Amino acid sequence: MPSYIAPVKDAQFILHDVLKVTESDIPGYEELEPDFTAAILNEAGKIASEVLHPLNTVGDTEGCTFENGVVRTPTGFKDAFEQVKEGGWPGLDMPEEYGGQNMPAVVNSAVGEFFSAANQAFTMYQGLTHGAASAILAHGSEEQKNTYLPKMVSCEWTGTMNLTEPHCGTDLGLMRTKAEPQADGSYKISGQKIFISSGEHDMADNIIHLVLAKITGAPEGIKGVSLFIVPKILVNDDGSLGARNGAACGKIEEKMGIHGNSTCVMNYDEATGYLLGEEHKGMRAMFTMMNEARLGVGMQGLSQADAAYQNALEYAKDRLQGRDVTGVKNPDGPADPLIVHPDIRRSLMEQKSFAEGARAFILWGASLIDAAHRKNDKDADGLVSLLTPVIKGFLTDVGYDNTVKAQQVYGGHGYIEEWGMSQYTRDARIAMIYEGANGVQALDLVGRKLAQDGGKHVMAFFELVKSQIAEMKGLDDAFDKEFIEPLKAASKDLQAAGMYFMQNGMTNPNNALSGSYDFMHMFGHVCLGLMWARMGHAAKKALADGTSDVAFYETKLATGRYYMARQLPATALHLTRIQTGADTVMALDAANF
Amino acid sequence: MPSYIAPVKDAQFILHDVLKVTESDIPGYEELEPDFTAAILNEAGKIASEVLHPLNTVGDTEGCTFENGVVRTPTGFKDAFEQVKEGGWPGLDMPEEYGGQNMPAVVNSAVGEFFSAANQAFTMYQGLTHGAASAILAHGSEEQKNTYLPKMVSCEWTGTMNLTEPHCGTDLGLMRTKAEPQADGSYKISGQKIFISSGEHDMADNIIHLVLAKITGAPEGIKGVSLFIVPKILVNDDGSLGARNGAACGKIEEKMGIHGNSTCVMNYDEATGYLLGEEHKGMRAMFTMMNEARLGVGMQGLSQADAAYQNALEYAKDRLQGRDVTGVKNPDGPADPLIVHPDIRRSLMEQKSFAEGARAFILWGASLIDAAHRKNDKDADGLVSLLTPVIKGFLTDVGYDNTVKAQQVYGGHGYIEEWGMSQYTRDARIAMIYEGANGVQALDLVGRKLAQDGGKHVMAFFELVKSQIAEMKGLDDAFDKEFIEPLKAASKDLQAAGMYFMQNGMTNPNNALSGSYDFMHMFGHVCLGLMWARMGHAAKKALADGTSDVAFYETKLATGRYYMARQLPATALHLTRIQTGADTVMALDAANF
Repeated sequence: MPSYIAPVKDAQFILHDVLKVTESDIPGYEELEPDFTAAILNEAGKIASEVLHPLNTVGDTEGCTFENGVVRTPTGFKDAFEQVKEGGWPGLDMPEEYGGQNMPAVVNSAVGEFFSAANQAFTMYQGLTHGAASAILAHGSEEQKNTYLPKMVSCEWTGTMNLTEPHCGTDLGLMRTKAEPQADGSYKISGQKIFISSGEHDMADNIIHLVLAKITGAPEGIKGVSLFIVPKILVNDDGSLGARNGAACGKIEEKMGIHGNSTCVMNYDEATGYLLGEEHKGMRAMFTMMNEARLGVGMQGLSQADAAYQNALEYAKDRLQGRDVTGVKNPDGPADPLIVHPDIRRSLMEQKSFAEGARAFILWGASLIDAAHRKNDKDADGLVSLLTPVIKGFLTDVGYDNTVKAQQVYGGHGYIEEWGMSQYTRDARIAMIYEGANGVQALDLVGRKLAQDGGKHVMAFFELVKSQIAEMKGLDDAFDKEFIEPLKAASKDLQAAGMYFMQNGMTNPNNALSGSYDFMHMFGHVCLGLMWARMGHAAKKALADGTSDVAFYETKLATGRYYMARQLPATALHLTRIQTGADTVMALDAANF
Repeated sequence: MPSYIAPVKDAQFILHDVLKVTESDIPGYEELEPDFTAAILNEAGKIASEVLHPLNTVGDTEGCTFENGVVRTPTGFKDAFEQVKEGGWPGLDMPEEYGGQNMPAVVNSAVGEFFSAANQAFTMYQGLTHGAASAILAHGSEEQKNTYLPKMVSCEWTGTMNLTEPHCGTDLGLMRTKAEPQADGSYKISGQKIFISSGEHDMADNIIHLVLAKITGAPEGIKGVSLFIVPKILVNDDGSLGARNGAACGKIEEKMGIHGNSTCVMNYDEATGYLLGEEHKGMRAMFTMMNEARLGVGMQGLSQADAAYQNALEYAKDRLQGRDVTGVKNPDGPADPLIVHPDIRRSLMEQKSFAEGARAFILWGASLIDAAHRKNDKDADGLVSLLTPVIKGFLTDVGYDNTVKAQQVYGGHGYIEEWGMSQYTRDARIAMIYEGANGVQALDLVGRKLAQDGGKHVMAFFELVKSQIAEMKGLDDAFDKEFIEPLKAASKDLQAAGMYFMQNGMTNPNNALSGSYDFMHMFGHVCLGLMWARMGHAAKKALADGTSDVAFYETKLATGRYYMARQLPATALHLTRIQTGADTVMALDAANF
């Protein structure tokens, strides 16, 4: 059975040594002293290890069950959810007026990683509620906020997002779900939605569905879509629960993984719904939730990879098999541990350098959100909007690959369900798909985000890399050679790719879109390269300042060197592929495939 | 539900246009006229599509069951096995004297791909029997051959291979299973073996286990291991079945995939066993089976990828979602099919160019085996020995990745078991693990095969690439630029990596082993590059000769161009990684991970 220990020390290194949160002028960051973040993160780590993680296998094995419209979550989920609620975790970064604790997103993200790593399927119930609450917070009327947010911030009521229909996923303009205006200002919602995570379950008194639908007579396509609040149980004026609404779960799906989360077909039959935000502007309101969800999904890529890596590492240290070719390392045993073998090391270093780089990337992203929300920093907002598809697409792709690598360390045992490594792979797989499949993220990045606001945000990103290089270089020759030069080279590759798109995408957009996936990955590498340069720099500083924890910082440097030397050069291959343009990609007629 | 159609035309293109089998001097090849191979391959394709494939989902859903020592295969497996036996498929390339049809391996490989693509779990029962029969054929006494082979060639009896024990997988020197010599020349075998595919089931009258064990008093380690024939039911002198032997299945494993194949814990309790080959030389005998199995597993990588690709392609043509950015392609429909989108194309082209290249690689490998076996060609034997870890490791890694890509084309539906795409991913996952995890293949390649016979075989490989380039170049400028130049560059990268190993591996073997996995992948790319150059060349010739099937050959060229332009350049990245040596890989103390 796998185990999980929250990487509190590593998260604190990023918060304090790298992001230097207490030196920031973002309101609320001044309170984030190391003792304070340690207290929160240790407590979260305890919940993750002791409450959520023991239910991870249970959730996978039992799954959810569906009978007569009722969904039952796996044994223990309900009790654990009560404990999470009691700890106030769901409202950690929500406004105090609705019962939250008003913490910065950067703290909430660190906690979210631990919870998700311990039990992804479980944590989704809370995560989707958070997303739905954020949408109501941003677009709801005062009455809507007062009615729903206190219950959702505490997770007494949970939330969902309803976009997909059987015939439309990415292309929501094809949507058929209808909203019929009523005399009292409400709407009657009718239609079928699929793939609704946490759509029905037994852990909350009510479920608040956010549903996209078309108001009768609305414009064609995506411009006629509006967003509605559709409670499972209608809420009386005094806040008490009233009649059952016409929203029902029709079935739950058998999936490759995340068995502990109920993925529902939701049938809306003249269900009462309330417009959230403006009519026909449903996508804008939904994107508040979607963008948050995409960052959360990117975090799932990291979290599953890190949890799987922790177990692969332990196995590699314990399992005795073969001898070190350079000399026996465990003379008293029948064989040396797996970790002596170079190819096992390679795999572990890839996993480790990714997880730590991704963690820094996620927390940096969260700090940009804090800057955007807490001090209205438009540049930070633009930058995180640019980075969102990279965080979602790159981290879930590589995160998934790393769960496969972790499983591989176990040899045959990795394939046997009893050992638990298959679950990481099966659970991590969904993150590449939901909240916009990764190909759609690449399209969003290259087709929309690059050119947004006249290309301002991508230029700002390159400027940022340049200025951070200028700030860091010259520390010593080794650091320049091992960290700065590779980052410069990778950033240059990324710029060359952007240039190729500009020069060739105008005449034929397919020249850009054929390289979109490669671009998303090379962008991800540059971001992780930047993170590793910053982490390496911080580690060098700590060592120069005479830290007592030499091994920790030396390890950080060694891990960074691995990433810079062996992972970051992937940008050159991506550039080569991008520069071949659309010719070989689009050559075939569909009929000739 | 997925469908499967055997790629008969493509296999024939490789056999006749590329390998030109009838022009070969390999005994038996003179009979392989196109009409003859078409008849066999079409019939095999029919069995695959109509008999085996409909049971693929059934096998996954039902799995095998274990009760009171009895294993039941999924509904329909037994009937289908009877049909396969009646068709004589299990003995296709086995000697006529034992009831086989004495066909070349190249034909058997083409058929094997179809069967495995249609139903991997099912086909393993037959595949392992073939391997065990090959080991008996190569190392058995006349009596052993006469006793077991006729029944195994027909699959009335099936076979297994027993290597792994709970505490030892790759490191078989740690083995504990014992063989006690008896007065009558037999042995009493006692011990536990795990992960025994097809170890117990209800489809055959007897099961012939090949079991590795240590004879009492044998030398320590791998040099004291012998191979034994251990029948489930003892065979009387007249060939009739006698008493039940002390070989029993203790449980079957719950696995990530291949649910239709029983993966057994086998307990041997003073079971009667007969020495196969010489005592203490069990590994040599087992490797006859193992090498065959590794090629078969490499083929599974291709087969699952191709089956998944076929379905992803159909989905991409059918599913309407979004519009072509360069102009509407399906004006009468609500949206264009997925296949208009460049990133979907990229994914499909990667899958297609891999599958067709891998098919050529597998069949070329099989033709080398034919040359080795049928005309005692030592060079061919050495070359296929060098290529075996590449076929196993590279094709199963990329094959798996491609099942993930195929699943991704389906978006959310790819994650739902009902659609069947998850099974391809889950089934394909095992191929990276069994018959030597892929890291072990890389170790075999770099640590053993490169230096084998003084490096003769790898030198021969480079000479072969060089001579084939010399033969093909100059056809026209476009071909040289699109096919020959990329192949030259990739081959140069591979040679540079080999050179790096020679220059740096002597002083520290970890400098070579840290790059072993990259080397295996770059070797695989060069092989597929060579295959694509040969296929491209054959296609150009056919077009120049005025073929009536222009679209087929043009498509072949377009697919080859994709591989050469966008996949083959990966060798440069692998070389970069390899040339960083062991420093960053081995830097950390195990305790500091």
